Amino acid sequence: MVDPGERSSTSIVVACAQTDPILGDIEANTDMTVEAIRGAVALGADVIVLPECASGGWAFADRAESAAAAQPLTGSTIRAWEQVAMEHNVWVSGGFGEKADGGALYNSAVLVGPNGVESLYRKVHLWNSENLAFDPGNLGYPVTETPFGRVGMLICYDAWVPESFRSLAVAGADLVLAPSDWVPNPHQPADMPPLAHLMVTAGAHSNQMYVAAASRYGIERGQQFIGSSMIADHTGWPLARAGGGEEIIVAQIDPIGSRSARRNDPFNRPLWDRRVSQYEMGEVRAH
Amino acid sequence: MVDPGERSSTSIVVACAQTDPILGDIEANTDMTVEAIRGAVALGADVIVLPECASGGWAFADRAESAAAAQPLTGSTIRAWEQVAMEHNVWVSGGFGEKADGGALYNSAVLVGPNGVESLYRKVHLWNSENLAFDPGNLGYPVTETPFGRVGMLICYDAWVPESFRSLAVAGADLVLAPSDWVPNPHQPADMPPLAHLMVTAGAHSNQMYVAAASRYGIERGQQFIGSSMIADHTGWPLARAGGGEEIIVAQIDPIGSRSARRNDPFNRPLWDRRVSQYEMGEVRAH
Repeated sequence: MVDPGERSSTSIVVACAQTDPILGDIEANTDMTVEAIRGAVALGADVIVLPECASGGWAFADRAESAAAAQPLTGSTIRAWEQVAMEHNVWVSGGFGEKADGGALYNSAVLVGPNGVESLYRKVHLWNSENLAFDPGNLGYPVTETPFGRVGMLICYDAWVPESFRSLAVAGADLVLAPSDWVPNPHQPADMPPLAHLMVTAGAHSNQMYVAAASRYGIERGQQFIGSSMIADHTGWPLARAGGGEEIIVAQIDPIGSRSARRNDPFNRPLWDRRVSQYEMGEVRAH
Repeated sequence: MVDPGERSSTSIVVACAQTDPILGDIEANTDMTVEAIRGAVALGADVIVLPECASGGWAFADRAESAAAAQPLTGSTIRAWEQVAMEHNVWVSGGFGEKADGGALYNSAVLVGPNGVESLYRKVHLWNSENLAFDPGNLGYPVTETPFGRVGMLICYDAWVPESFRSLAVAGADLVLAPSDWVPNPHQPADMPPLAHLMVTAGAHSNQMYVAAASRYGIERGQQFIGSSMIADHTGWPLARAGGGEEIIVAQIDPIGSRSARRNDPFNRPLWDRRVSQYEMGEVRAH
């Protein structure tokens, strides 16, 4: 619990809440996430991040299974998040399987505030078997004005592709919320952090913005998830890190109040030192 | 020393040799680098990476000092590297202060093979006080065909800007050589690796290519350098890491032989999973 007396007028408390969804059981998972949101509120959170696919689980064998666990943006899980966000005057970002027009299925994340849905993101980079269950996202990387700064979202493996963080930074994001279902990396040396933490640190540092990434835990159809949620400040280093089970981490951050300090960082300014004319960012030319 | 019997026909041994240059003393520094190259050759190296600004030192107060320690591409240090590369049939990449036409001064790196200079790179992202001593690089990120694969270069802080690695990957690089003068990060938590290692791991992993980064050690005008050179394989994880003093690290890698395995990596394919249409990679739009 953060003492409100210590907070500047633009500071907020961001929380990442780890859950272990039940594959296909939207009702149970929705209750689970609402309970997690209330737990984060009790810790003083203003913004709560939930895992990827928090509403329906992740390990779908095919599109039929994925569709059965998907819902439109007006679905029951998002309604429940809107309700609890309004009730407690907080913001929630969580992942859900989205059923869209024409039978499209997206691995999506929503940003919900006290007045309802504020932003929708559809995972651009599908990982592994997700290609069997979802269509690739088609909304780019939206950035939304909120009372606590400009906020964008990405989902899990998107963080492995540096254009994700960069696109959000170019659009002015102060804070990135990253619902995730992080898995173990098969080659991680014992003395190195999880690859997910390296990607969050590199993304936050190179883009001089805050990142709050919430990952699920548990095992689903043999796939293990590591939890290990992380909140990084704009230098990339962690403000809070979770273990591998049910847990809520919180950190106080100041996305708006830090703008000048971030832009004028006396050590590294990798967002502002870019030289776009020198880059090649198109399709791979040779292999 | 790597047993040649274990090596595939396309494998090479890459080395990173740490030196502690003397500010402004090109002759002593050239001798120092030639000795380091011979040391790496004795360990079986085919490709040797030297630090950034290995010929003249780094901490120049102004352009006059930088100019006094700079040399053209035909200068004595590069001549010495050509000589030793020819003599031992090896390749060398090292950093040098470059005096170019019209009084321009670049923080440059060269790739020298047995037949002489093969590629020139000029640091695109100047860090901190380097802006007082050098002009920003104007050659983009060249990638050169060699007998052991397509090779590109970047220098130190370039690695903090993900477009550097990405531009090289887009141009088809199998291997990035990174002469560096890494400094301590003021906020590094005790249980996290140096930020430089995170940037190398993220760059190598997200671009599915090998990275060999050689950093200097020592203290120059109060600026400490951490050594800690690192060779990463195409998963990003370290094959070899150095300490903070005089040291040569080596690793066997197979940039050409791994092309198919890299492109078809069954776990993560972040270079090939890119979706360029979804990105915004221009100038920052808002802050």
